[in-house]
Amino acid sequence: MEEDNYYMKQALAEAKAAEDEGEIPIGAVIVCQGRIIAKAHNMTQRLIDVTAHAEMQAITSASAGLGNKYLNECTLYVTIEPCVMCAGAIAWAQLGRLVFGATDEKRGFSKYANNLLHPKTVVLSGVMAEECAALMKSFFAKRR
Amino acid sequence: MEEDNYYMKQALAEAKAAEDEGEIPIGAVIVCQGRIIAKAHNMTQRLIDVTAHAEMQAITSASAGLGNKYLNECTLYVTIEPCVMCAGAIAWAQLGRLVFGATDEKRGFSKYANNLLHPKTVVLSGVMAEECAALMKSFFAKRR
Repeated sequence: MEEDNYYMKQALAEAKAAEDEGEIPIGAVIVCQGRIIAKAHNMTQRLIDVTAHAEMQAITSASAGLGNKYLNECTLYVTIEPCVMCAGAIAWAQLGRLVFGATDEKRGFSKYANNLLHPKTVVLSGVMAEECAALMKSFFAKRR
Repeated sequence: MEEDNYYMKQALAEAKAAEDEGEIPIGAVIVCQGRIIAKAHNMTQRLIDVTAHAEMQAITSASAGLGNKYLNECTLYVTIEPCVMCAGAIAWAQLGRLVFGATDEKRGFSKYANNLLHPKTVVLSGVMAEECAALMKSFFAKRR
């Protein structure tokens, strides 16, 4: 629990970095054996690329770092519930564990089907959910 | 019809390039106003990255080329039905049209939910399906 909060804070720091760059504030980190092996935040605007979500980049980076495209021993922390695209990537990478902060009522993968992740991936939601959601709310409030 | 076959042949050439590299033989091209603006094939092995599907790379490349992350005016041709991850990317990019060859009974997005794509994306399946499926069958037959 304390450990999950610690890593979610790192994901939140990534989300804030996204916000500072004018990106939708979502951040992710991947942890393997007590070590953060990848940090990323949403960069869809800067890269002009819808695939540049925090989770996607974290998975690409972690796999490159480990030299293994399967991440069974890793935990992905992300501030907001992954979308369908990211859930698909998390499934392919066979993440050991997925921890997310706030749910996404509109685009979250769980709204579409209940079998998008790998059956062995353990999921925990609601970690620092208020902080994660607050960043999104303030970001979109400023743009209205 | 003839045009769709023409572009699917280009996607098939990409799939063959994947096969030559020991990758699962799936290829994609993106066409915008009668011009191929991106070609890609599966590179998950070489890049050690589950996100390196043909469709994902084609979308990243097309968006970079156009300077626009939305591909409403484009058609994506891919030899095999996209997976959930790629369907999610196709949805985010708002592809105008998706044309695929053979269905994927196990991993195809349509097996998971019927609302994974953007509602405006027009879908055509079955273009050169036999040729597209044959490449996959011979690839996996050699590995058993």
